[in-house]
Amino acid sequence: MRVLSGIQPTGRPHWGNFFGAIRQYIDLQQENDGFYFIADLHALTTVRDPESLRQYTIDAALDLLALGLDPDKATLFLQSHVPEVCELTWLLMTGTPMGLLERCHAYKEKKAKGMTADAGLFTYPVLMAADILAYDSKIVPVGQDQVQHIEVCRDIAGSFNHTYGETFVLPDAKTLDHSSKVPGTDGQKMSKSYDNTLPLFGNVKQIRKQIMRITTDSRPMEDSKEPADDHLFQLYRLFASESEIESMAAMYRRGGFGYGEVKKAVAEASEAYFEDARARRDELVANLDFVHQTLRDGAEKARKVAAEVLSRAQRACGIR
Amino acid sequence: MRVLSGIQPTGRPHWGNFFGAIRQYIDLQQENDGFYFIADLHALTTVRDPESLRQYTIDAALDLLALGLDPDKATLFLQSHVPEVCELTWLLMTGTPMGLLERCHAYKEKKAKGMTADAGLFTYPVLMAADILAYDSKIVPVGQDQVQHIEVCRDIAGSFNHTYGETFVLPDAKTLDHSSKVPGTDGQKMSKSYDNTLPLFGNVKQIRKQIMRITTDSRPMEDSKEPADDHLFQLYRLFASESEIESMAAMYRRGGFGYGEVKKAVAEASEAYFEDARARRDELVANLDFVHQTLRDGAEKARKVAAEVLSRAQRACGIR
Repeated sequence: MRVLSGIQPTGRPHWGNFFGAIRQYIDLQQENDGFYFIADLHALTTVRDPESLRQYTIDAALDLLALGLDPDKATLFLQSHVPEVCELTWLLMTGTPMGLLERCHAYKEKKAKGMTADAGLFTYPVLMAADILAYDSKIVPVGQDQVQHIEVCRDIAGSFNHTYGETFVLPDAKTLDHSSKVPGTDGQKMSKSYDNTLPLFGNVKQIRKQIMRITTDSRPMEDSKEPADDHLFQLYRLFASESEIESMAAMYRRGGFGYGEVKKAVAEASEAYFEDARARRDELVANLDFVHQTLRDGAEKARKVAAEVLSRAQRACGIR
Repeated sequence: MRVLSGIQPTGRPHWGNFFGAIRQYIDLQQENDGFYFIADLHALTTVRDPESLRQYTIDAALDLLALGLDPDKATLFLQSHVPEVCELTWLLMTGTPMGLLERCHAYKEKKAKGMTADAGLFTYPVLMAADILAYDSKIVPVGQDQVQHIEVCRDIAGSFNHTYGETFVLPDAKTLDHSSKVPGTDGQKMSKSYDNTLPLFGNVKQIRKQIMRITTDSRPMEDSKEPADDHLFQLYRLFASESEIESMAAMYRRGGFGYGEVKKAVAEASEAYFEDARARRDELVANLDFVHQTLRDGAEKARKVAAEVLSRAQRACGIR
């Protein structure tokens, strides 16, 4: 089944991104025909510095390939390398009621905060619909905050099909599993907006320093502690094996340990966990030609599908 | 100088369209590098029947070529044949403040009437800006009602240039001359919305019937009449020579004539005026391959220009 996932190139991914999303949608490549695109056109709504955008875009490709996205199994490409998506965006735009976009929360929230919104943010759900529909995508893995946009896509596609006859495949949202908690360095949910993130890639020593500075409580060392309530333990369990997790839990309940020990364990376990990916990323950085070729090959494959769908839509509405 | 004009394929042109716009922008091909496109993507905001849209589109090409648009002098193409315009539309969209579009009167008027507006109508000024900017257009001949959209285009282009460095040529509106009054069959301004139009092309006998039914006043035949105040005279002067106009004016002032005579004169003068165009159109209809080839050639030429401008814009904002 065609699975589509778009990744915004707006900065370096952190542990929360990885466990909450990236790992899950990369896993989908095993059983599905995965189309993964780096949403550079979408990023333009927030990134206004060309050098940063170029860097973020290639970084996103490097990250995904390093983390296991397999170009022999899945199709990886840049959004802007498929012009058919922009053509389709306009066709869909002419059939999208204003009210549908006005109800979208990303726009509503920005407006409610009194911030000036651009037409790009307002019409972004139409671009997203074109991204999805252009590849006859059947499954779109998304976070809870994006489910509304899949509904909008279904509305737009359904209304086009109703006006012009069956043209688009209606996609289904596959909500990502958010059950594994990924706390940040302050114990809150790890999120860029809280400035409490730990990056997947980067200088290992620096990341270790960040881990050693994770906030902890001031209960006496001797006290027995419930592991499930502790954010250090929650981080540790992301990376450790079943038996390691059990030993660590037993130590918490027993008491008589310092949080420094646990931090060191988190650092070591996370370093081991990302070791292969880090090595792969270094190799890829040394071989950027391969990355660019992978993106070109992916775009070629994606364009073939998109051109067919676009042509179907153009004939349906009478501009061909 | 590059002159750009977009023609909406939304039905058959009437005398008002011709004297108020078509003739004037076709004339610009003599001294300029004229780019003329048939705005099929734009028409989608109002035409929802694919067969009609296809017919209107080819009709628009036939009309323009019949009326003197010379493919050896100017470039004629379909808007949808230049995908670069849609790509550019998105780049511009991300830098277009909502307020700019909310102030555009086509959208405001529709909203004020309580009609449901589509995102296509709302964002159409961005598509129009892309159409203009994609060809480095310097002059855009427009009716008074479109001057605001040229201002919006200048705002969008100026803001892009400001953010990313000089990229786009800022166009100037050239307001069309509306001094020659073209009254409709009821004496009001000729306009589709008043249902009082006389078509340029179509069955000559039928058009003559419509002319013979033009409303007139009931003053006695003998009375002297001021020609300038009479809509039949205003129609006659569109088609007649200086000396014919003078004789007719003298007859009006003298009195002692029937409006039927004037109607016949209007019919004969208009038939003679459009005779060549009508014959050319019949030839073109019999040779549609030539028309399609002309549109393909035009699109190829237009795409070369648009691809350069798009590439400039992509590099500027960092998606290349």
